[in-house]
Amino acid sequence: MSLDVARVRADFPILSTRVGNRPLVYLDSAASAQKPQVVIDAISRAYAGEYANVHRGLHHLSNLATANYERVRGIIARFLGAAHEDEVIFTTGSTEGINLVSYAWAAPRLQAGDEIVLSVLEHHANIVPWHFLRERQGVVLRWVEREADGSLSADKVLAAVGPRTRLIAVTHMSNVTGTVVDVATIARGTDVPVLVDGSQAAVHMPVNVAALGCDFYAVTGHKLYGPSGSGAIWISRARQAEMRPFLGGGDMIHEVTREVVSYAAPPLRFEAGTPGIVNQIGLGAALEYLMALGMDNIAAHERDLGAYAAQRLSALDWLDIQGNAPGKGAIFSMAMQGAHAHDISTILDKQGIAVRAGTHCAMPLMQSYGLPASARASFALYNTRAEVDALVAGLEFCRELFG
Amino acid sequence: MSLDVARVRADFPILSTRVGNRPLVYLDSAASAQKPQVVIDAISRAYAGEYANVHRGLHHLSNLATANYERVRGIIARFLGAAHEDEVIFTTGSTEGINLVSYAWAAPRLQAGDEIVLSVLEHHANIVPWHFLRERQGVVLRWVEREADGSLSADKVLAAVGPRTRLIAVTHMSNVTGTVVDVATIARGTDVPVLVDGSQAAVHMPVNVAALGCDFYAVTGHKLYGPSGSGAIWISRARQAEMRPFLGGGDMIHEVTREVVSYAAPPLRFEAGTPGIVNQIGLGAALEYLMALGMDNIAAHERDLGAYAAQRLSALDWLDIQGNAPGKGAIFSMAMQGAHAHDISTILDKQGIAVRAGTHCAMPLMQSYGLPASARASFALYNTRAEVDALVAGLEFCRELFG
Repeated sequence: MSLDVARVRADFPILSTRVGNRPLVYLDSAASAQKPQVVIDAISRAYAGEYANVHRGLHHLSNLATANYERVRGIIARFLGAAHEDEVIFTTGSTEGINLVSYAWAAPRLQAGDEIVLSVLEHHANIVPWHFLRERQGVVLRWVEREADGSLSADKVLAAVGPRTRLIAVTHMSNVTGTVVDVATIARGTDVPVLVDGSQAAVHMPVNVAALGCDFYAVTGHKLYGPSGSGAIWISRARQAEMRPFLGGGDMIHEVTREVVSYAAPPLRFEAGTPGIVNQIGLGAALEYLMALGMDNIAAHERDLGAYAAQRLSALDWLDIQGNAPGKGAIFSMAMQGAHAHDISTILDKQGIAVRAGTHCAMPLMQSYGLPASARASFALYNTRAEVDALVAGLEFCRELFG
Repeated sequence: MSLDVARVRADFPILSTRVGNRPLVYLDSAASAQKPQVVIDAISRAYAGEYANVHRGLHHLSNLATANYERVRGIIARFLGAAHEDEVIFTTGSTEGINLVSYAWAAPRLQAGDEIVLSVLEHHANIVPWHFLRERQGVVLRWVEREADGSLSADKVLAAVGPRTRLIAVTHMSNVTGTVVDVATIARGTDVPVLVDGSQAAVHMPVNVAALGCDFYAVTGHKLYGPSGSGAIWISRARQAEMRPFLGGGDMIHEVTREVVSYAAPPLRFEAGTPGIVNQIGLGAALEYLMALGMDNIAAHERDLGAYAAQRLSALDWLDIQGNAPGKGAIFSMAMQGAHAHDISTILDKQGIAVRAGTHCAMPLMQSYGLPASARASFALYNTRAEVDALVAGLEFCRELFG
């Protein structure tokens, strides 16, 4: 069964809007994905008829909202191949998820001189929390460089592990080059806990945390076609047991007195305050939508699209593309002699084509390419070959202007 | 100009739904408020036609989303009477806001033996972050007890301030008793920074942080008729300058290299990662809705409703109400001899009346009343005297069953 892209596109209302007098060509899904109508409807329905605060209520609406909200934990567990629902902790996105690990697991455990291995491919969300530990408690960051084709060598990651290494923090898919990292080989090759930033990967391919063998896997809802402020991090029970609470407030406590606090059992222990109830309900709708389409089908469609885009873009010999690792996702970072990335983005925008320009929250990787910025076209389940053609035509027009 | 409650009610779709065969009587707004159609529409519109990630884009949709999102900072500043927009930091709610202050301002500044003054009226969101500092670095919590009528003496708060006091953390309105705290007198009476939990107060009365003279003022969007996961904390520029970053990730940095990080200027410095874009846009719609109605008008309506409820409830001599401080908000915590709070809530629910039962995330206050739990009826701008009557009739029915 393959993806019926025309039908898929009809599910996303924004895709039929126009930019100026041009049809929208949305190639910025790596920054944030558009939302299918089922997600928008789930949000509206929740607020218009099924809304109350969760967990502590006994009345009809509270019970209904709690059931709708807690059901999403199971959906996420299924989406990620997690054995236990209680290993899914709701977050507002990968940034909060990784900071949770940094503050709740790493900060109280790591001593000055202890090391974290991370790759130069990382997004700032998987860099800055570790820089905090360097700044505040003398943790050492060990960087693994990329290969010439933009790939990351699992062997080099493992070779960077030493007696003081306490954590490996790697992306599963680069948000700049689309490089897929062989997390399973890394996790199999060491006893050091492995944190995976799944922000991009989980959008584009089937993920199974059990098969990966990692300890932490963070995803972000807004990239998964879900609402703002939705997300989750999967954390194995073993690592959860080593974590202290992070955010303090309601719902994460067992008892509070003037003198002491005792904490609720996980996952609630790590979910303080009124959660993003309707955001997570919307994320549940998004993940059910993806699973109904089939992540394998989505991956196959994007593989086809990515191969076509790679072929057409590589024919533009004045265009420099960062990264061509085998099996990479359909994300293309591009630079053009004589044209600033921001100009490329602005000119493409005049043709209705939305791409991002800048450092893509991945400055170390951009530094490794010697680029102050690039233009990035990122494809998603709703994109088409015709949109690849539109991008190529748009780039050719840029070339005429700047070449 | 007074509030046209019938018209207001028509703005909230959920209020015309039924529970079983009864019309919904929603008296649980202190836990979370219902949403007007303008908020639901703002969310749908944002996702269906104006969505992209913010800040770093140069294309049409990103510029549009950024403008819609950043505009809300000004709306919040206006709503809170803040002089500077950049003093408004977006959060996912008061819990995140107060934890931000705890981690970013208090944790690096407070030494063992330093003191935080807080009141027994506090919600767990304004307790647990301070208990963390007690557990982790030996900070001492100085509790100020309530008065017999549930009020908090500003003089006693000031009397608790000593040479080691580094922060006063108080609620502006109790979520259990509705007690309003005289924050202005407290802030005027000391140089110690004052953090105010405005989660309840900002919903029910006009707030002006300049007039209050506090340093930190946290609000939570979902109680302000806004979306899940929306909110803000106002922090004076002086206190912001004393804060280190809290969550690390994209958007809060100036530059990231393998060796170091430099940080963006506030407020972005304290807003890591993709923010709750559409949640905050929805909050903006909610606050504009409230300001169009007029916070004075809302306060007057709730004052009338609260006085009527106090009169009718106090006539039930078998009902014990916690707190009757002058000027209190329309929130009523109730206990009934012989009936568990949970039973009261469940029986009221059968009549379509939604009240909350439990400790309301305020265990120290409940302990001060010697109660394991209470039933709480909380009124909002859309409630009516007829709903007070329905509550009284429902309680009388409970009394017949348990009395």
